[in-house]
Amino acid sequence: MTVTAPKGFRASGVTAGLKTSGNPDLALVVNDGPDHYAAAVFTSNRVEAAPVTWSRIVVGDGRVDAVVLNSGGANACTGPQGFADTHRTAELVADALGIASGDLAVCSTGLIGELLPVDKIESAVPQLVSAVTPDGGEDAARAIMTTDTVPKQAVVQRASWSVGGMAKGAGMLAPALATMLVVVTTDAVVDQSELDGVLRTATATTFDRIDSDGCQSTNDTVLLLASGASGVRPSQEDLIAAVTEVCGSLARQLIADAEGAHHEVAIEVRTAASESDALTVARAIARNNLFKCAIFGNDPNWGRIVAAVGTTDAVFEPQRLDVNVNGVQVCRGCGVGDDRSLVDLSEREVHVVVDLHAGDASATVWTNDLTHDYVHENSAYST
Amino acid sequence: MTVTAPKGFRASGVTAGLKTSGNPDLALVVNDGPDHYAAAVFTSNRVEAAPVTWSRIVVGDGRVDAVVLNSGGANACTGPQGFADTHRTAELVADALGIASGDLAVCSTGLIGELLPVDKIESAVPQLVSAVTPDGGEDAARAIMTTDTVPKQAVVQRASWSVGGMAKGAGMLAPALATMLVVVTTDAVVDQSELDGVLRTATATTFDRIDSDGCQSTNDTVLLLASGASGVRPSQEDLIAAVTEVCGSLARQLIADAEGAHHEVAIEVRTAASESDALTVARAIARNNLFKCAIFGNDPNWGRIVAAVGTTDAVFEPQRLDVNVNGVQVCRGCGVGDDRSLVDLSEREVHVVVDLHAGDASATVWTNDLTHDYVHENSAYST
Repeated sequence: MTVTAPKGFRASGVTAGLKTSGNPDLALVVNDGPDHYAAAVFTSNRVEAAPVTWSRIVVGDGRVDAVVLNSGGANACTGPQGFADTHRTAELVADALGIASGDLAVCSTGLIGELLPVDKIESAVPQLVSAVTPDGGEDAARAIMTTDTVPKQAVVQRASWSVGGMAKGAGMLAPALATMLVVVTTDAVVDQSELDGVLRTATATTFDRIDSDGCQSTNDTVLLLASGASGVRPSQEDLIAAVTEVCGSLARQLIADAEGAHHEVAIEVRTAASESDALTVARAIARNNLFKCAIFGNDPNWGRIVAAVGTTDAVFEPQRLDVNVNGVQVCRGCGVGDDRSLVDLSEREVHVVVDLHAGDASATVWTNDLTHDYVHENSAYST
Repeated sequence: MTVTAPKGFRASGVTAGLKTSGNPDLALVVNDGPDHYAAAVFTSNRVEAAPVTWSRIVVGDGRVDAVVLNSGGANACTGPQGFADTHRTAELVADALGIASGDLAVCSTGLIGELLPVDKIESAVPQLVSAVTPDGGEDAARAIMTTDTVPKQAVVQRASWSVGGMAKGAGMLAPALATMLVVVTTDAVVDQSELDGVLRTATATTFDRIDSDGCQSTNDTVLLLASGASGVRPSQEDLIAAVTEVCGSLARQLIADAEGAHHEVAIEVRTAASESDALTVARAIARNNLFKCAIFGNDPNWGRIVAAVGTTDAVFEPQRLDVNVNGVQVCRGCGVGDDRSLVDLSEREVHVVVDLHAGDASATVWTNDLTHDYVHENSAYST
């Protein structure tokens, strides 16, 4: 169960022929209400794709009736024609649904710098719209996959309301955000005015804390749609908790399926002077290619970790740095600690803990190792 | 010819047994004067190795009589014992040379977080000191190699004075500085007070503009030693030009021999509002793993270039960005330009030109592609 787990939502996924593989590449999520509230977080990349520009406008009034998503092409860096193509896609789908195109969000993912074959989308719209069902969530989740090897879905079920979600993303994972398209749905009754805060609170500690390869995309979009169909109004606290749980699950699924990754690495920075410092240090480590190669080689090369810490402006005294890898205190006081050969890195999940000894704040960022497979996938992707 | 090309310098390189390979690993450069002026630029990494801490103090008074350099161990993150080991190394070599240890700089390179076997250095010092000759530059250049495949040397010969240099560095190449040890020598007569400015001017546009893998080391050191032995005093302008030429040659040699690289990539950012903006944009591209993988795959994936540009705060309007790869204008106005299949990336050297259309400033940063060989070397390096 996925985006269609909450009441009031239908979805579909079909093959429009945008992907050369012939796999499904066009998805639709429809909010049947009674509410049609929406909030969104978009990439902070200044080079934003046409569908991001379009969807920013659509979400501006807080109402979204449906979202159409395609894989097989990012429609980024495609100029005025690209925006016209997004607009046309929205009109085609909106007409078929009998809604206003200004209430239809559009998401695209795939190669940057190629125009979308909108004629193929046009041909597929009747099938896409006729296929929407309350069970279509998984079809939609499959249709947005690019180099993902598995669809990403999550559901949190409360007594009489729920939150569901789907995500795609396997490379260009970096805050904020990752190269991801995410749709989160809920049938909770919620005021339109509080939805944006709920989503931003949830993404701040989930999608914004994964960094697979340091590369920020042009298309990232996280949409939260609320139908109110359960008739139940949870407290804001409960809603935030449920949306955060769904976003957290999807974020971990993205890291677990990141392109070519052999390890998922949690970098926990503790005893920092501030949460901001802890994040700065964790991200510096997460983006250090030498560290990421060492993890691929099952090598607890903590020198590369402290060298990365040393490039930041966080508050710490270098000679007090401690580093623990999978439970072994390999670096103590910025010097040689316990025997590094005691560290077992054979499992997929790795935990790195860095103590700055500068305060009480902490933060965790998830990343991946840098592998032959990452290089292979990303040197061959567009050709 | 190398650091011993200028008059007044002798050098040597021997095998102390610090490297398991049995290759030379201990080098010495001696300045016989009559002047013993020196300037230095060190890593800005806050986690600095013991020899960096030591050499900062030595260079503090502007006088350096000799420099001893070892490969086979960085002596970084080795605590008080590491500093004592550097001190001991300096005393052993200074005693053998009959100079004060406070006038002897020390440089180390290799794995971080391991103590140096100073007993092996002690045993090798008599041989090291007795081997110094006016022809020993190449031996010294070979003894500082780590994963370098070739020694890096450069000489600029003027009418009656010269500048020579040697460098090592093959990974962790990032400003400022790269993982590099560099010794530059000159027999020009120069005031001690102007030497620091000469070196900083030269490094700012050479070593500070190469970024192989975004990783900044704990040991980077660039030393400039002036003997005055030519008896000729060039203008400051001429001296800066010659030192910059030597540093530029060494910097390009570092990029050409970077770990696992298949391409050397010049990223030229033009029509920027400021040189700082141009550098910011060039560095963002140089650190983008997806772009670096694409170059490895001979794929002119300009979407990854504009996506990297979009992450910066430089002044530009996204819709005006132009990108040229090896002479083909693949992106025009942030949209599809000429056919990307016209780009030939089969040669080792690649030129990327980005136009921001925001002013008259420009800057070029050199980087490498991200390859299977890079991942291989850096996942297996310390084990």
